Amino acid sequence: MRPLLLLPLIAIAAAAPAQKPKTPSEIVAQSPASAWKAISPEDLLVMQLRGGGRVVIQLAPAFAPIHVANIRALARANWWDSSAIYRVQDNYVVQWGKNESEDPFPAGVVAKPPAEYARPLKGLSVHPLGFPDSYAPRAGFALGWPVATDPKSGTANLTHCYGYVGVGRGLSPDTGTGGELYAVIGHSPRHLDRNIAVVGRVVSGIEGLSSLPRGTEALGFYKERSQDVAITNIRLASQLPPADRPSFQYLDTSSAAFAAFVRARANRNDDFFIRPAGGTDVCNVQVPVRPTPAT
Amino acid sequence: MRPLLLLPLIAIAAAAPAQKPKTPSEIVAQSPASAWKAISPEDLLVMQLRGGGRVVIQLAPAFAPIHVANIRALARANWWDSSAIYRVQDNYVVQWGKNESEDPFPAGVVAKPPAEYARPLKGLSVHPLGFPDSYAPRAGFALGWPVATDPKSGTANLTHCYGYVGVGRGLSPDTGTGGELYAVIGHSPRHLDRNIAVVGRVVSGIEGLSSLPRGTEALGFYKERSQDVAITNIRLASQLPPADRPSFQYLDTSSAAFAAFVRARANRNDDFFIRPAGGTDVCNVQVPVRPTPAT
Repeated sequence: MRPLLLLPLIAIAAAAPAQKPKTPSEIVAQSPASAWKAISPEDLLVMQLRGGGRVVIQLAPAFAPIHVANIRALARANWWDSSAIYRVQDNYVVQWGKNESEDPFPAGVVAKPPAEYARPLKGLSVHPLGFPDSYAPRAGFALGWPVATDPKSGTANLTHCYGYVGVGRGLSPDTGTGGELYAVIGHSPRHLDRNIAVVGRVVSGIEGLSSLPRGTEALGFYKERSQDVAITNIRLASQLPPADRPSFQYLDTSSAAFAAFVRARANRNDDFFIRPAGGTDVCNVQVPVRPTPAT
Repeated sequence: MRPLLLLPLIAIAAAAPAQKPKTPSEIVAQSPASAWKAISPEDLLVMQLRGGGRVVIQLAPAFAPIHVANIRALARANWWDSSAIYRVQDNYVVQWGKNESEDPFPAGVVAKPPAEYARPLKGLSVHPLGFPDSYAPRAGFALGWPVATDPKSGTANLTHCYGYVGVGRGLSPDTGTGGELYAVIGHSPRHLDRNIAVVGRVVSGIEGLSSLPRGTEALGFYKERSQDVAITNIRLASQLPPADRPSFQYLDTSSAAFAAFVRARANRNDDFFIRPAGGTDVCNVQVPVRPTPAT
């Protein structure tokens, strides 16, 4: 029954003859240890689903520091215990959490954070994507994150790519507190860039969100509360006992390995490809993240 | 338990005061009947999943005529009866079908179709996207489809957007027969453009594919055949009894309504949005398709 004709779209890292161009996966697999940066356990949010799935999110304090501080405070206070995923909209987002009408915020949470939708470009060393962006004057990567930049306004913003996590909000000037979060599970909804605080990305377990049944109400909300997906708890990795604590690294976006990775993503010339694209959009270059290798 | 703080990302079509800018959904809902084009029942492929889901695919004979003719011949011969979905790779594709090693092709199937990866630009009236594309010199819409165009080579190709359907193949010069197909369930993998025959798009039921459990083997293949998702049959709409026959229309991409829709997608200025993007990529403008309204 298993078909013979495959669609080998992503090459598996493997020893290849020297003359063959490396695949993006090979470049990542062969990159030196020095090209990888550890992610602090203060920057890892661990969401435990009652059904058994575990979703790990890397936070981005360099882009939305006050929202991230809120999220850390909520995690430390175990505020999300027994909360739920209540919205799954196809080709868009999965959303979860709760708000202060259900449970007052713990001390230290800023109830009305500023609009951390972009940050100063100044001081950021940006590795340019090198190809046109449909939304912003330029796109690239900085501090391990994909960014859209606007030299005129002097700003840089995180881009809404697959797996990226933002803060649910109502109408402006409400920016959301961080109590309700969403993750992108479809084509990158970049029209949300600079309209919402992006606070991180899923680095493990996205399939536990993306494969959930879609909600049938408007905007993908579940109709009945019985359909909600229960969240046991959400913790910072730093709160977890060492044996249970996830540990990840990301590929330094200012490394030579990352530059080679971007070039290879834009110019696939391994066996399967006949015609390299000669370009890529910023969301089709996912910054490599891996579990910290055993030493 | 239901949170009050929503993330109203897609506006629901509703009567709005005249002074408010229209949302993309409102533009579509208010477009005249003359802006819609019927999809032929010869261009609708209906996949019935044993679990109950039904997926409807619009075929694109103007872009891959020989592959589409193969697919029609396979459907008419009931060739896919009792086939299966055997691959679900997160942020990439769902793949299904079988190949001729399992069941010889019926008469009329071209075993080695030409590489229908692009078509002549000449004769196509393209509505330009109006914003830079990261992969091709230009992007736009023609005959109801998103296209990337290259005036230098004089070609136009369908773009790998969310829900788009392509033909699985092995290494070149194999182009695939159409017996194995895949649908995109993640960020648009545009690096596949011009490397694979794109033959259509899912116009209904994508959530029956995108929410399937992800395969745990390399490339998202299911490990055990018992995990496969059974396909009862795949038929052309024209083969089905009228009462069971789906019927759809698409918004004419050369209509004024479609032009307004693209502008609104690129410049969201309804209540939720603070900062219109001023741009969009071609895959973030899904060509509107709707069930044929009752007359």
